[in-house]
Amino acid sequence: MNPTGELFIGGARRASAQTFHAQDPARGAAIEDVAFSGATEADVADACAAAEAAFVDYASRPLTDRAAFLDAIADEIEALGDALVERACRESGLPPARIIGERGRTANQLRLFAAEVGDGGWRKLRIDHADRERTPPKPDLRLRMVPLGPVAVFGASNFPLAFSTAGGDTASALAAGCPVVVKGHGAHPGTSELIATAIVRAAERTGMPAGAFGLVNGMSRNVGQALVADPRIQAVGFTGSRSGGEALMKIAAARPRPIPVYAEMSAINPVVLMPHALKVRGAALAEGFVASVAMGAGQFCTNPGLVLGIDGPELDTFARRAAELLSGQAAQVMLSEGIHAAFEKGKAALAQSPFVTRLADGNEPTGPNQGRAALFSVRGSDLLADPAHLHEVFGVSSVLVRCADTAELARVLAGIEGQLTATLQIEPEDGDAARVLMPVLERLAGRILANGWPTGVEVTHAMVHGGPYPATSDGRSTSVGTLAIERFLRPVCYQDLPAALLPAELRGDGEGGAPVRIDGKWNCSGA
Amino acid sequence: MNPTGELFIGGARRASAQTFHAQDPARGAAIEDVAFSGATEADVADACAAAEAAFVDYASRPLTDRAAFLDAIADEIEALGDALVERACRESGLPPARIIGERGRTANQLRLFAAEVGDGGWRKLRIDHADRERTPPKPDLRLRMVPLGPVAVFGASNFPLAFSTAGGDTASALAAGCPVVVKGHGAHPGTSELIATAIVRAAERTGMPAGAFGLVNGMSRNVGQALVADPRIQAVGFTGSRSGGEALMKIAAARPRPIPVYAEMSAINPVVLMPHALKVRGAALAEGFVASVAMGAGQFCTNPGLVLGIDGPELDTFARRAAELLSGQAAQVMLSEGIHAAFEKGKAALAQSPFVTRLADGNEPTGPNQGRAALFSVRGSDLLADPAHLHEVFGVSSVLVRCADTAELARVLAGIEGQLTATLQIEPEDGDAARVLMPVLERLAGRILANGWPTGVEVTHAMVHGGPYPATSDGRSTSVGTLAIERFLRPVCYQDLPAALLPAELRGDGEGGAPVRIDGKWNCSGA
Repeated sequence: MNPTGELFIGGARRASAQTFHAQDPARGAAIEDVAFSGATEADVADACAAAEAAFVDYASRPLTDRAAFLDAIADEIEALGDALVERACRESGLPPARIIGERGRTANQLRLFAAEVGDGGWRKLRIDHADRERTPPKPDLRLRMVPLGPVAVFGASNFPLAFSTAGGDTASALAAGCPVVVKGHGAHPGTSELIATAIVRAAERTGMPAGAFGLVNGMSRNVGQALVADPRIQAVGFTGSRSGGEALMKIAAARPRPIPVYAEMSAINPVVLMPHALKVRGAALAEGFVASVAMGAGQFCTNPGLVLGIDGPELDTFARRAAELLSGQAAQVMLSEGIHAAFEKGKAALAQSPFVTRLADGNEPTGPNQGRAALFSVRGSDLLADPAHLHEVFGVSSVLVRCADTAELARVLAGIEGQLTATLQIEPEDGDAARVLMPVLERLAGRILANGWPTGVEVTHAMVHGGPYPATSDGRSTSVGTLAIERFLRPVCYQDLPAALLPAELRGDGEGGAPVRIDGKWNCSGA
Repeated sequence: MNPTGELFIGGARRASAQTFHAQDPARGAAIEDVAFSGATEADVADACAAAEAAFVDYASRPLTDRAAFLDAIADEIEALGDALVERACRESGLPPARIIGERGRTANQLRLFAAEVGDGGWRKLRIDHADRERTPPKPDLRLRMVPLGPVAVFGASNFPLAFSTAGGDTASALAAGCPVVVKGHGAHPGTSELIATAIVRAAERTGMPAGAFGLVNGMSRNVGQALVADPRIQAVGFTGSRSGGEALMKIAAARPRPIPVYAEMSAINPVVLMPHALKVRGAALAEGFVASVAMGAGQFCTNPGLVLGIDGPELDTFARRAAELLSGQAAQVMLSEGIHAAFEKGKAALAQSPFVTRLADGNEPTGPNQGRAALFSVRGSDLLADPAHLHEVFGVSSVLVRCADTAELARVLAGIEGQLTATLQIEPEDGDAARVLMPVLERLAGRILANGWPTGVEVTHAMVHGGPYPATSDGRSTSVGTLAIERFLRPVCYQDLPAALLPAELRGDGEGGAPVRIDGKWNCSGA
């Protein structure tokens, strides 16, 4: 099965006159087989109108049907077989093993959200019974969460499956009961189209309304801007650059009726090497660090772009070993020409700083768009004087920060902008010093790790892939894990409504499943 | 006990050179006994610095201590006795019975949040156990909600106790673990100061850090603007006008690090009179409606400013009876000269519309700042052609919308901006028609009532006082009821942390209390 280059609007394919081609970053050339339609403003408006027309119908389907839809999407994606893997590899430059793994993650994620729909705890059912004898009489009050309305999703280039067309944002928005219009990422339009085909098939197979999903492509920024500005869109999910995310935030805030934007934008994911950990297992730390920073050409939101330690012989040993390992790293094809250019620019800016020392370079590139690994070093005191060095460099690049003591290390951490993750490498003897850092790390990041590496994001219930600004535009949320569903919901209270008008789940004292809060007490009889 | 006119910064009183006087709206004159200090930019910065300095300490206090603080605030407010009632009445023009009732509501609200702190369900504890045998190994993940940081609260004029200095926003932010800096409302500075005294006493008595609460006053907009722009402030609670709320949203969005603004701004709270209800109890509906619209000089966010019905003799009867009752309403002192002026302006704009008919006026004013009740009427078709008539007129004013049929009524409802409430007056025979309206009402408002009146907001677990824009700036939230605590929290995930570094509530498998989600299942053993 090959892509046709069409958009999906209201469940139907549609072509447009303006076309563009996908790129093969490994060859540094266009993929000529298909011309992809770029959406016009009218296409965007039609996709939003279809989503709006589908909303009430889709939102009111039984949860079992909504769950079946999500499960069916997973099935249909798997049924795309090798065609999907081949296309995604070609468009992204990522190796097949990675894409196959990511496909598994994408399907698991959809099935996890299918199960989450069924759990129903996200509805936050609350019932406060009436007390008609009270003065004034106390009314009967019942609360549930309802979906916001149509959601715009901007796929990420670095996860062409798991964080793109049917990725975490789409899965959680559909789970919440919101129709989704995806702005396909220009770096993998064919992959997007194949996935969209799977979603539309799943919608047809499970009888979902045609507007529950739409796909608009286009290399012009106008497409995404028109989507976020469309009055029918009620929330935005985005994974990408800080400048891209901030541009969408501005459009959303300037609407007559502003809407929430969940943009996952940038992070350098500090890793703290505590003294005893460095002493006991410095070499292993260097190996783990380089493996984490080099994974997937460094193109992970959770890539460790900053590693901090206390200056001394143990940190020297770590730095030498890390430099040695990094020097042996082959240059890897990056996701796109633009990402490769930004990587080179970011490294050059770091290298030009008078405070920054270059510790190592990886192997030289052997083909187009290959990113050459780099490791830098800076003193903590210099960083405190000029924290401008700390912008994300998306790729295999990291900065080692040499701090004079733990107090300086804490000050450096406290001065860093919001992060997705913060990692402690510790031994039991580091406990007291680590305990002092915990409040700093809790304010800094959405996820705190001990003795692991931030790359690798488990898709489960307790995961947080989010963090204070600018890691995300809204640190109150996560874009990975089941808690992500809450981004697309709002509460509605029903006061003294007759049972016939109440949502089924609020009749009686709750319908079982997740706990229901009744008169302030948690009723777990259904759990 | 009399106010001194001072600010509270870091738990200490402070005066400034620039002063202003409170106003007595009933006399239309200044209250000369006290000169109130207006905060300088340095005062605002100091209050924010004190809040920031207190944050980690305050946030890490045991929940029992935080609850004791909230309970102590309630006790200290009650201990202020008649001095508080007298001052609040004088500054607001509201009668003693209303202020005494509101004081009870304020104390109950603080105690409800004290209990909510102890319940702990808002922490959303989640634990996903490790599976070290899996490939790759699955880490141990534990999630809890943590407080955002210092919160700025803008008190409302129309609830000088329940939605001002120690009102719902302050109570829910303190409950979440966030220090609070209140921008006192210029309409009741003495009331604010007395309440602040109670809060500071409670903080001292329960050993809370001095910066956990601060109060800055000032008639200049600069004070509030500086507060929202301060980098230490992490969220904003506001109740007031749409222009005021939108101004704060702009400042918050333009910060280098944008923050959430929870602004409760405006609503006209449509009430739908369904045909059978009108037929069976039209006269009683007219009485209930006029009582609701006239309550508290119409100065409630949930005042019914719009009442809709199907044209016909039953609606004529309702309109006649409502007009008759409203004509007999005495003019009531409004909260401030500014609110009175805005009310007169709003009524004049309605009266000037060629589509609007004036059905009745209340009695003429007999003193300064008295608002004269008014009832207007408009055809549904005219409203659909020009929905500009539907701005909130804060005061005893409402518009009756005569619709041709239920389809037109549904179209009018679908065209209204976001609301705090929507009300159905129904009899069982209206059920089918009402069921069709439910999806429209769910998108329109945060609370849907049957056979009641929107004024009167129960402070409990299932209440939602919020709604789509512009009812609030963030329809995903409520500012009344225990769910309000969620506005000031964000999730943090702890991955593979040794027990010694984990928050106590995440060690073991949860500590009891509210349900904990373990490996996706709800563990209710503690509930």
